[in-house]
Amino acid sequence: MRVGVFDSGLGGLTVLSALLEVSSGVEFFYLGDTARVPYGIRSTETVINYALECAAFLHRFDIDLLVVACNTASAKATKALRETFPQTEVYEVITPAVEEVLKLNPPRVGVIGTPATVGSNVYKNLLLEGNPNLKVLQRATPLLVPLVEEGITDGTVAETVLRHYLEGWRGEIDTLLLGCTHYPLLEETIKKLYPEWEVVNSAKPLAGKLSDRLNLGGENKIHLFFSDRSAFLEEMIEKIPLKGEIERVEVFNWEKVII
Amino acid sequence: MRVGVFDSGLGGLTVLSALLEVSSGVEFFYLGDTARVPYGIRSTETVINYALECAAFLHRFDIDLLVVACNTASAKATKALRETFPQTEVYEVITPAVEEVLKLNPPRVGVIGTPATVGSNVYKNLLLEGNPNLKVLQRATPLLVPLVEEGITDGTVAETVLRHYLEGWRGEIDTLLLGCTHYPLLEETIKKLYPEWEVVNSAKPLAGKLSDRLNLGGENKIHLFFSDRSAFLEEMIEKIPLKGEIERVEVFNWEKVII
Repeated sequence: MRVGVFDSGLGGLTVLSALLEVSSGVEFFYLGDTARVPYGIRSTETVINYALECAAFLHRFDIDLLVVACNTASAKATKALRETFPQTEVYEVITPAVEEVLKLNPPRVGVIGTPATVGSNVYKNLLLEGNPNLKVLQRATPLLVPLVEEGITDGTVAETVLRHYLEGWRGEIDTLLLGCTHYPLLEETIKKLYPEWEVVNSAKPLAGKLSDRLNLGGENKIHLFFSDRSAFLEEMIEKIPLKGEIERVEVFNWEKVII
Repeated sequence: MRVGVFDSGLGGLTVLSALLEVSSGVEFFYLGDTARVPYGIRSTETVINYALECAAFLHRFDIDLLVVACNTASAKATKALRETFPQTEVYEVITPAVEEVLKLNPPRVGVIGTPATVGSNVYKNLLLEGNPNLKVLQRATPLLVPLVEEGITDGTVAETVLRHYLEGWRGEIDTLLLGCTHYPLLEETIKKLYPEWEVVNSAKPLAGKLSDRLNLGGENKIHLFFSDRSAFLEEMIEKIPLKGEIERVEVFNWEKVII
């Protein structure tokens, strides 16, 4: 079994980490598009172009299944991906998180994500489709990706930035949906500031959905590809637990890739 | 007279603004590579590729002079640009700021910039070349670009992030060199927190250097190109004064450009 996973950068490693936790005997090919991160501030057309290129890259490894481990790409490019690669099962990170919130059934939920994800209203629309009485608040939180990519996940700076975005929701929401794969790295700090909130992210619900199919016995093999040697690459790989044998870490140049 | 100016994104508009202040009768072509911002976390090879593409794009407009309004590209790609476009005068933003600091002649200077700029040691090396007795401190401050691009230039969040990076230098430096074209938008807040520091940025010294040649009489004309319609485009254009007639604001797609 070969699974392709891609993200705009390093945040999708949290999704890969959760998938590896429930997998055995699976070969994972992860692509972090670090040469063009972040996707969340870019236009729909650009995000679709980038996502299709990432998917084409991963298809060179004969993958059976594709996971879009980026909320922005999930929101903007899933349809285009399914149309362009009809033979591939495409999983995205939005539906599992929405289902998890609907299962918890809170009266009020807050959704945070990149400007692109929040602007698409994809979470809001799906949540209200599942429960028209749900009160849904949304906020774009563009500083959180660079914060996490710099490794600042706790302490004064992280808390100040989180309060800047979230303080207005104190007493206004019961559940916080983390609509970006970078944000789970801030989860502990969020829970410290707002212990009364249930915090939901898509990594675990998605992994739960796929666990039956990915538990094949034996060791996982991991191939990591990045489109640029970004400043915090090694730190992030060390910070996020990856259960399996890392077979390669390769930095490539988009301009030299023929897909 | 036609002048091309490029930056990784919107920060270079501070350089364009300073150039327009000293210009008359000049036609400016500005390219903000918003589809691939930020450059400062990317590898040298990638920054050079991107810079050459930006320069080729601007050469389609028969420019007489090219200004690299991005510190990362100035540090990493100036040599490659001069070699690839030998017929064009290439100005970068590093030398003017270094000359300004050497003119002020402080005993101790702090340099802040992106990880790429600081990692290149370009400021440190040039400053020490000019004055071997100067004490030069350096720090990469990668959160400041996204902070400015989100429009957070004062208030608690801006102050907390600035203190996170700069508080250790209180009493340790006399002059702060802003080694990134986004940072002038934070200058007021920096001066409020550290009124004892002289703050130097490259925009004004560079404009001063070129003022004789750019003062031709008549109105300036401005053409603005961006490789993506990013979330904060309009806000930034409104925030930064541009003296002249804006003839066009155009968003293009790199994949459809033949250069």
